[in-house]
Amino acid sequence: MSDDAEKVARSSAELMLSRDAASAALGVRLEDVAPGRATLTMRVRDDMVNGYGLCHGGLMASLADSAFAVACNTYGVVTVAAGFDITFVESGRAGDVLRAQAVERVRRGRSGLYDVTVTRVADDVVVAEFRGRSRSLGKPIT
Amino acid sequence: MSDDAEKVARSSAELMLSRDAASAALGVRLEDVAPGRATLTMRVRDDMVNGYGLCHGGLMASLADSAFAVACNTYGVVTVAAGFDITFVESGRAGDVLRAQAVERVRRGRSGLYDVTVTRVADDVVVAEFRGRSRSLGKPIT
Amino acid sequence: MSDDAEKVARSSAELMLSRDAASAALGVRLEDVAPGRATLTMRVRDDMVNGYGLCHGGLMASLADSAFAVACNTYGVVTVAAGFDITFVESGRAGDVLRAQAVERVRRGRSGLYDVTVTRVADDVVVAEFRGRSRSLGKPIT
Amino acid sequence: MSDDAEKVARSSAELMLSRDAASAALGVRLEDVAPGRATLTMRVRDDMVNGYGLCHGGLMASLADSAFAVACNTYGVVTVAAGFDITFVESGRAGDVLRAQAVERVRRGRSGLYDVTVTRVADDVVVAEFRGRSRSLGKPIT
Repeated sequence: MSDDAEKVARSSAELMLSRDAASAALGVRLEDVAPGRATLTMRVRDDMVNGYGLCHGGLMASLADSAFAVACNTYGVVTVAAGFDITFVESGRAGDVLRAQAVERVRRGRSGLYDVTVTRVADDVVVAEFRGRSRSLGKPIT
Repeated sequence: MSDDAEKVARSSAELMLSRDAASAALGVRLEDVAPGRATLTMRVRDDMVNGYGLCHGGLMASLADSAFAVACNTYGVVTVAAGFDITFVESGRAGDVLRAQAVERVRRGRSGLYDVTVTRVADDVVVAEFRGRSRSLGKPIT
Repeated sequence: MSDDAEKVARSSAELMLSRDAASAALGVRLEDVAPGRATLTMRVRDDMVNGYGLCHGGLMASLADSAFAVACNTYGVVTVAAGFDITFVESGRAGDVLRAQAVERVRRGRSGLYDVTVTRVADDVVVAEFRGRSRSLGKPIT
Repeated sequence: MSDDAEKVARSSAELMLSRDAASAALGVRLEDVAPGRATLTMRVRDDMVNGYGLCHGGLMASLADSAFAVACNTYGVVTVAAGFDITFVESGRAGDVLRAQAVERVRRGRSGLYDVTVTRVADDVVVAEFRGRSRSLGKPIT
């Protein structure tokens, strides 16, 4: 992988996240980024749990979706989510720090598929598996 | 449908949402509920949009996931999400009010499938289609 | 719905199925078709069951996929499957006749979403729920 | 991984496939198996293509589903498919030999998630990505 590709990945991620009010409000942080890859973390706050005291599934999906969005935009081309599927494996609780690692699985034409594994940082247990379907719009990120 | 089933649906929904800090923080409101069904709304706030000025996909999914959770818990039995799939059809923008209508598609044994359509209230356009997979734990909601 | 739309739907379905060697080999039959809709049936043969004596999940998905393909091509425009999700609800056994009813859920631009419910004809029990994602190529079916 | 686990994986796979009339009729062959993993191949025959001359999506899914079934049954415990999602990346044509490689992604309690990548053997291009959801019944394969 060239240095240039790495730079484009990092600058695209930083630009996107700097403008992403939703990820900021969720306390999502960028840990690592490379072409086709991104790692983000989020701490489950008291206002993120549902009626059973567990991290709201949609918010867990939001962390994964942010990681997916960063990963699929690392080529410097505006790319949006067409959809995603998530399977919940374990529960998250208030205070848990969750890590989402997004990895590109396949890209062809304007379509891409990204796998995101969400783990609990404390014990590295998998809490969710996410697969995102992306669609590039063909315009540069500016 | 019996009056009793309607009452159980309403009381389960109210109990769940009264404890659901995440849905409250997202401004999610219950519009309607019946056995196997629930309609919820959410206004897209400025802190809910992503780097492209569009409602964060994970937060749109959170609204749908809340509607799914309410719908699959209307029988008074603790039921959790095993996973879900969402397809994004249109974008939501800050200020838009979104409505999620969850309808049970099939239930067999402890497993269930719920379809949630998310629309923009202003023009009733479909913005997302969601399908949730539920798993009952067999314990009463108390 | 206009008579013309109905005619296009029927002629597209007949043209597609007349050329579809796979559906023919599976014994798939067209029961009904209309714009955005199609109903097909298939009998589970002895060479369609798996190691547990149950209809192979992929072949049940094949019936649903054929119904999806017919439904999303009813507008006379070449449309292909981008992917699909299937949930198995009940088993099918050798001798069972299965019916797949495909209904368009949403269509926007070149993308579409179709729900296919597979039932056992004998007792009308749901055996599978399928959701297909289509992509139109913009060329007429000829 | 112990020799015993390898033996159980192989014997379970061979037992399952020896009884799987559907996989046999599709010409599916076992190439490799290990605990949580399986590689199968299938040649796209003339009676497996659809109206556009491409391998029927359901039959491509059938190959992946067979690989998934073998992989999730390698622990010697009867395990069934709860559902799966497939994304089509490239087309297959008559004469193509397709290879499906199933790998366990996560397993917890009675639930499991398996990723299956389908490639065209001639040029190793990815034609489809499949993710299967399994459910163990807790009974030994006999």
